[in-house]
Order: sequence, then C-alpha cells, then structure tokens
Amino acid sequence: MPYVNIKITREGVTAERKARLIAGVTELLREVLDKNPATTVVVIDEVDTDNWGIGGETVTVRRARGF
Amino acid sequence: MPYVNIKITREGVTAERKARLIAGVTELLREVLDKNPATTVVVIDEVDTDNWGIGGETVTVRRARGF
Amino acid sequence: MPYVNIKITREGVTAERKARLIAGVTELLREVLDKNPATTVVVIDEVDTDNWGIGGETVTVRRARGF
Amino acid sequence: MPYVNIKITREGVTAERKARLIAGVTELLREVLDKNPATTVVVIDEVDTDNWGIGGETVTVRRARGF
Amino acid sequence: MPYVNIKITREGVTAERKARLIAGVTELLREVLDKNPATTVVVIDEVDTDNWGIGGETVTVRRARGF
Amino acid sequence: MPYVNIKITREGVTAERKARLIAGVTELLREVLDKNPATTVVVIDEVDTDNWGIGGETVTVRRARGF
Repeated sequence: MPYVNIKITREGVTAERKARLIAGVTELLREVLDKNPATTVVVIDEVDTDNWGIGGETVTVRRARGF
Repeated sequence: MPYVNIKITREGVTAERKARLIAGVTELLREVLDKNPATTVVVIDEVDTDNWGIGGETVTVRRARGF
Repeated sequence: MPYVNIKITREGVTAERKARLIAGVTELLREVLDKNPATTVVVIDEVDTDNWGIGGETVTVRRARGF
Repeated sequence: MPYVNIKITREGVTAERKARLIAGVTELLREVLDKNPATTVVVIDEVDTDNWGIGGETVTVRRARGF
Repeated sequence: MPYVNIKITREGVTAERKARLIAGVTELLREVLDKNPATTVVVIDEVDTDNWGIGGETVTVRRARGF
Repeated sequence: MPYVNIKITREGVTAERKARLIAGVTELLREVLDKNPATTVVVIDEVDTDNWGIGGETVTVRRARGF
C-alpha cells in the first residue's frame, strides 16, 4: 500500500530505466518492510531543468556552467 | 482552505470530466467538513503511463497485457 | 489506481468524518472516471494551524481574529 | 536541506521569473532558518488551467469570466 | 539531485528500517540513473491508519477485519 | 492561487519563524508573478530527522557526526 513519488530532472530518461526504478523501489519496500508489491504505487515526475533549483539557481544554469 | 491533489494516469480525460472531479471534491469537503468552497484548491496531475508503477511494473506494460 | 492527497488543518476532525472523505472521493473517481475503488489510494494530511498559511499569515493568527 | 515545491498555473511564466522565485525562496530559508543554500531544493510545477480548481470550478472557466 | 517521498502507514517502523529505505533508494538512483548520492533527498511520511484509505475505506477498518 | 509546500527537518522551529516563512514566500509570489496573496496557500511540513535522508543516510546520523 505504500506510495512513492520520485522527482528527477527531465533529461531524456528512457522508459526502460523508469521501469527499473519502479521495479527496484517496489522490491525495496517488500524487502525492508514486507509491503505487498501488488498495492505499491510509484509515480515518477520529470521536471524541466528551468523548474528545478538547487543552490539558489536553476539546473539549466548549472548545466550551462558544466555541472 | 483545503488543498487536494488528484493524480491519475494521462489517458485522455476530458476537460469536462476534470471539471466534474473538481466540483465533486470541493462539494464533498463542504458537506463533510463544512469547508468553504471559495478557498478550496484542487490540483489534478495527469501522469504518463510510463511514469506510473503498480505491482512493480509500469501501467504501459500492464495496459499492453490487457489490464 | 488514482492517488489522492487531501490536506486540511488539524482541528479535531473525527475518524468517522475522515472515513467519509475517503469513501466519498473514491466513489467520485469511480463515478466520473470509472476508476477501480480497489486500487484507489487516499491520504489525508492534517496540518497544524501554525504551519498553514493563507493571505500571508498563519491560520492560527486568522482563527484568533475570528476567521 | 529544505525541499520547496511551488505550484502555479501554466500561463507563460518566463525562465527568468522562475529563476527569481528559486533564488528568492532559497534566500528566504537562509535568512529565516539559516538553511544552507547549497542543499536547498526548489521544484516549480506549472499546472494547466483545466487541471487547477478553486471555488469548485477550473481556472479555465474563471479566466473566461474575467477573473 | 533527485527528491523521493515515501509514504507508508504509521505502524511502528524502526529508525533502522527507515535508514535502510533511505540508503536503498539512494543507491537505486545512483545505479539506474547515475544520480549523485550527496544531493539525493529522501523524505519518509508515516501516515496514521485513520488517514490512509484504500478500496474506499480506512486502513484502520481493514486491519480490524484482518487485512 | 499558488500553492507552496515547504519541507524542513523538525528541529524546534518557532511559530514566529514559520509565520515569517509564510509571509515571505507569499510576498515573493506577489512581487515576482503578481499573485494575489489572499489566495496563496503555504503549507510547512516538519519532518523527523529519522525520516529525512540525504547522501544515503538519515539526518539523525549526520547530526550525530556533527553536521
């Protein structure tokens, strides 16, 4: 019954890798807390780099500086 | 003053149905908790089926199997 | 499979009323979008009035003024 | 280490203004709570006006009425 | 830089198990997406069983029926 | 009409400082995006240090090491 929300920057992550994240976090909850995979919900949000800030600046600006 | 967030898969829900969800949940909060509709905020997120997981797999994969 | 999060101020809402919210929003999603109640998840967050702001001030301050 | 999520309607906000929001809220957390800007994360969600409700109706409908 | 929110019911999960969840999901994001663990943020919310609904009823009611 | 959620660790922040955060972020949205303070909602979540992870470990563990 857990609900997991993963937020990452939108930078071309493939469907295959998103499926691995979903499988992995569902398995982690089964392993650590014995949660039933059938009712574990995972939602991935991909956020534009203009809309994600860290260190007081956007990821767009940081990427332009080579981070 | 309540805030409600509804997350559903992005599968062509019409504006009319989203308006019905917003009206319905606002009315529910008035009826059950006497919350003022004027300040009840509802945000609907539509999530790509590649980004929604249940049972350890994506909704895209489940839909392909006929769920 | 929808996920709904309802945030309200923590002001002594009974378990019975929270159950009515959960039943009501689950039924609304069935009715409007034909969503399966068995996998509809609803999470209610009750937030201290010191931690909820509207109009630039906390609900604690507003309640003290008679709102 | 704080995490801030700002939700606004999607109505053509420029990257420059989003950068000002990110800088401003990061500075606010440094000033009020002495939080380290380097690990302050800010995520801005822009939500379609069909998907945002207030007063029991969508922002699309309200905008059409001149609000 | 990812942000992960895990919501589970409040049912006495130990600090040690929560630490395992945090370590596990951080490692998963490093492994699948090469995300830097130093800036991966994980927040766990434990939700009262009266406040969590599935299948249109609270977890409190379901637990009482033996689920 | 914006909605802002601020998540910080639960470490004894006073009501006065939370009120300053709410006032500050509401003013920032007015200044940068001309948003109406009357309908700007701010919710602050204070999260136990056992439930907040960064760098793959809990804040509790980091605080014990002097961070």
